[in-house]
Amino acid sequence: MYPWKTLLTPNRELPTPVYLQLANAVIQEISAGRIHAGQKLPGTRALAELIGINRKTVIIAFEELVAQGWLELQPSRGAFVSEKLPLDRYRPIGEPASEEVNAETAFDLEVDTSLPILEKKPQKSINFTDGTPDVRLAPMDSLYRHCRFFARTRMTTRYLTYGDVQGEVHLRTELANYLNETRGLRCKAENVFISRGSQMSIFLSFKALLRPGDVVIVGESNYPVVDQVVEHLGGKLLRVPVDEEGVQVEEIRRICHQEKVRAVYLTPHHHFPTTVTLSAQRRIQLLEYAHIHRFAVIEDDYDYDFHYASSPMLPMASLDRSGSVIYLGSFSKIIAPAVRIGYLVAPLNMIEALNRLRKIIDRQGDSVMERALAEMLREGEVQRHIKKSLKVYHARRDYLCQKLQAELGEWINFRPPSGGMAIWAHFAPEIDLKLVAAYMKEEGILLSLRENWDYKNNGIRLGFASVNKDEIDRIVSTMKQAIAAFGIQSAKTAR
Amino acid sequence: MYPWKTLLTPNRELPTPVYLQLANAVIQEISAGRIHAGQKLPGTRALAELIGINRKTVIIAFEELVAQGWLELQPSRGAFVSEKLPLDRYRPIGEPASEEVNAETAFDLEVDTSLPILEKKPQKSINFTDGTPDVRLAPMDSLYRHCRFFARTRMTTRYLTYGDVQGEVHLRTELANYLNETRGLRCKAENVFISRGSQMSIFLSFKALLRPGDVVIVGESNYPVVDQVVEHLGGKLLRVPVDEEGVQVEEIRRICHQEKVRAVYLTPHHHFPTTVTLSAQRRIQLLEYAHIHRFAVIEDDYDYDFHYASSPMLPMASLDRSGSVIYLGSFSKIIAPAVRIGYLVAPLNMIEALNRLRKIIDRQGDSVMERALAEMLREGEVQRHIKKSLKVYHARRDYLCQKLQAELGEWINFRPPSGGMAIWAHFAPEIDLKLVAAYMKEEGILLSLRENWDYKNNGIRLGFASVNKDEIDRIVSTMKQAIAAFGIQSAKTAR
Repeated sequence: MYPWKTLLTPNRELPTPVYLQLANAVIQEISAGRIHAGQKLPGTRALAELIGINRKTVIIAFEELVAQGWLELQPSRGAFVSEKLPLDRYRPIGEPASEEVNAETAFDLEVDTSLPILEKKPQKSINFTDGTPDVRLAPMDSLYRHCRFFARTRMTTRYLTYGDVQGEVHLRTELANYLNETRGLRCKAENVFISRGSQMSIFLSFKALLRPGDVVIVGESNYPVVDQVVEHLGGKLLRVPVDEEGVQVEEIRRICHQEKVRAVYLTPHHHFPTTVTLSAQRRIQLLEYAHIHRFAVIEDDYDYDFHYASSPMLPMASLDRSGSVIYLGSFSKIIAPAVRIGYLVAPLNMIEALNRLRKIIDRQGDSVMERALAEMLREGEVQRHIKKSLKVYHARRDYLCQKLQAELGEWINFRPPSGGMAIWAHFAPEIDLKLVAAYMKEEGILLSLRENWDYKNNGIRLGFASVNKDEIDRIVSTMKQAIAAFGIQSAKTAR
Repeated sequence: MYPWKTLLTPNRELPTPVYLQLANAVIQEISAGRIHAGQKLPGTRALAELIGINRKTVIIAFEELVAQGWLELQPSRGAFVSEKLPLDRYRPIGEPASEEVNAETAFDLEVDTSLPILEKKPQKSINFTDGTPDVRLAPMDSLYRHCRFFARTRMTTRYLTYGDVQGEVHLRTELANYLNETRGLRCKAENVFISRGSQMSIFLSFKALLRPGDVVIVGESNYPVVDQVVEHLGGKLLRVPVDEEGVQVEEIRRICHQEKVRAVYLTPHHHFPTTVTLSAQRRIQLLEYAHIHRFAVIEDDYDYDFHYASSPMLPMASLDRSGSVIYLGSFSKIIAPAVRIGYLVAPLNMIEALNRLRKIIDRQGDSVMERALAEMLREGEVQRHIKKSLKVYHARRDYLCQKLQAELGEWINFRPPSGGMAIWAHFAPEIDLKLVAAYMKEEGILLSLRENWDYKNNGIRLGFASVNKDEIDRIVSTMKQAIAAFGIQSAKTAR
């Protein structure tokens, strides 16, 4: 005998009315096999009393279940579970109903395990990244104040409906002005595409460009997520060496004489990870080869706004007169990683390709936040934030360099970078950075060791922008302890 | 003689310091060919006077240009544009420098024109959509108040750094509770994936599932963006008829005996566009066939929360015990299209596949807004918003049905839908809906005629949720005028 009394504990706090809660409970029990096809249900009066609800509620629930085909009413006999539901065929007899979603799909699923899973970070640690902004400086209050403004007035509810796939037009206009003024570009709002951070610009660019087997050239060490995108899309990655003038452009030319090159990806302002700047001569040569050999240059200029000792060279996009360059940047690096607004500047046919793709991927960005950011650019608030951050990051770069030299000078070798948010440092070969990272993690400091990194020279990026002086003190002293305790593979005397 | 006086108008309001503005201007002029390789620049004192800036500023600018390789200093002779820059090779002699980004890329680009471009909507029109929520009801003030809270406190700056690819954990937890309570699911936070609206859930699901040539079954009329995604990914679309019990499941079984089916996409709560509900029996049969033939069921339940006359049947996901169903929903349909937060419930291996893909597409969603929405679910604010909207939409459905019947009863045929946000209406065959839409557009009312729609029965979705009574009055009377004026292909007497 089924325990009807426990079928339902009505909850009047829920948005679902009680009659529906009852109907749903019956469906659950039927499909779990605890109430059988053909089984008779109690009378409405009896069930109402058992559960402690109004009889009318039970009647409406039964009507609903009949309408949906779960129950059948037999005149003067009562309500029965429908015989037509093929429940017994569906659930093998004797197999208990699962109370959770299955761990595995019933259909076959091939997971692309070449794409890495991100490790979740322990909270309350100091995250010593490979170069991210300090979110404690981010003007979020102002950003959300602007968001509220643009979302609430009756005049502007248009930001709440479906918007422009290419990105909110005020942001594209302000951004075109900003890029033309600060980077010597000559773009219009039509050339600007608003993405969700550099990551989406990278993905969409390669998605539009690559067919399986197409060749993409990158630096011999490279931003790892780009490698993942190219390989996932079936592209063929070729790597060229990087020296103190940046990526070796002559090597790219040599490859062009051997095979059709589809695209070159690089970060000319500061090569990732080594922070080397691509020389003026190589920039012009690369543009020339791009024009001749008809390949795309994807210029990822994620840290252009941050320069300390020397001034930044203008981006390659400002020199491009043939339409070879796809120029990428992001507010995730300027304001905060959680502000998922990046941008891309390109000729109109490229923008069209991206608009068509974007529509089926996620339809559009966050129009309200895009509109808010446009206002902050127009008012100069973003620019003031950059100036302020630049000053803070400059001091942090100097402080970290000085501390590393003073405390770890024996073990470490680096050149202070002219800009950006990280130092590229080489540790002495006898230091095992994985052991150092493990020790530091225990002490609540996360070192950025990416899995598919080039560790050949025991190199690592040390992101100074997001950590303050106290944190730098703690990081460097912990690193020193780590090296002393565990980090050295062979005894120092064995050198 | 180059007009050095006009080389630069220094602007001290810009974030870029003046020496850099000067250096950038020189680079611009060199690369535009207006200053030539080998050309001598004026002395620093002379240039400073011509432009009206400090001589020191010119000296620093020149040092910068030398460091970057643009200029060379010849002792006691002055500064010259470097001969090493291959500018003449790069820019054909006599060709003027372009002042804009090129319209076309220098590299070949094949644009997937099967993906449509969205027409931009004229502002200030009444948008009579095919079923979207009324954004004027959206609790945006509260949403952004919560966003500000979670973004600003020092404790929670963690929402501003890189977050969980799968979605913010509080939202996944609250959502699992909400779905389990209201829809009879049995999921945990680990089974929930937060996407950017249903669109991204659809794209990622098919991206994870499909290899070129894989068969996907949809209703004979279907949500058009799904067709676009499947075809873009190289899938093979097969269409099965839809009758008053929904998609014909027996037809799906028949196909399964002929070829390997990879996935079935459907909206069982209300078939898109016809609003028909899939019957209980067909649901169970479909789950059985999915289990036997190992295909995925993608259940897009975008309008579950909106039901008027009868109660909603529980989603198929609540009956799935084999792990066949991928369940989709979205807050874009509950709050506002601009709130780009959707979700997906699936077995863990599917979630893993999505996490790996998502990382290279756009890395993550908006963690701050996700956290804010979690709080609004926890506090019951989302639920109260749904209750309120439901009441408003119910009244609007009734009002639109009544007006259509009264004013256009002669020309139109429809059944009031039991839920959702749109009526599926058939117009008399002699009415040309494209002419009607054109007329209405002139009058500031946008009718939703999708390009790749099934117009066989002159059917159209009329979205009542987003328009108030005054707007409905205006819509229906304009539609009546349109039909009278232009809409009838053949004379009425010819019937």
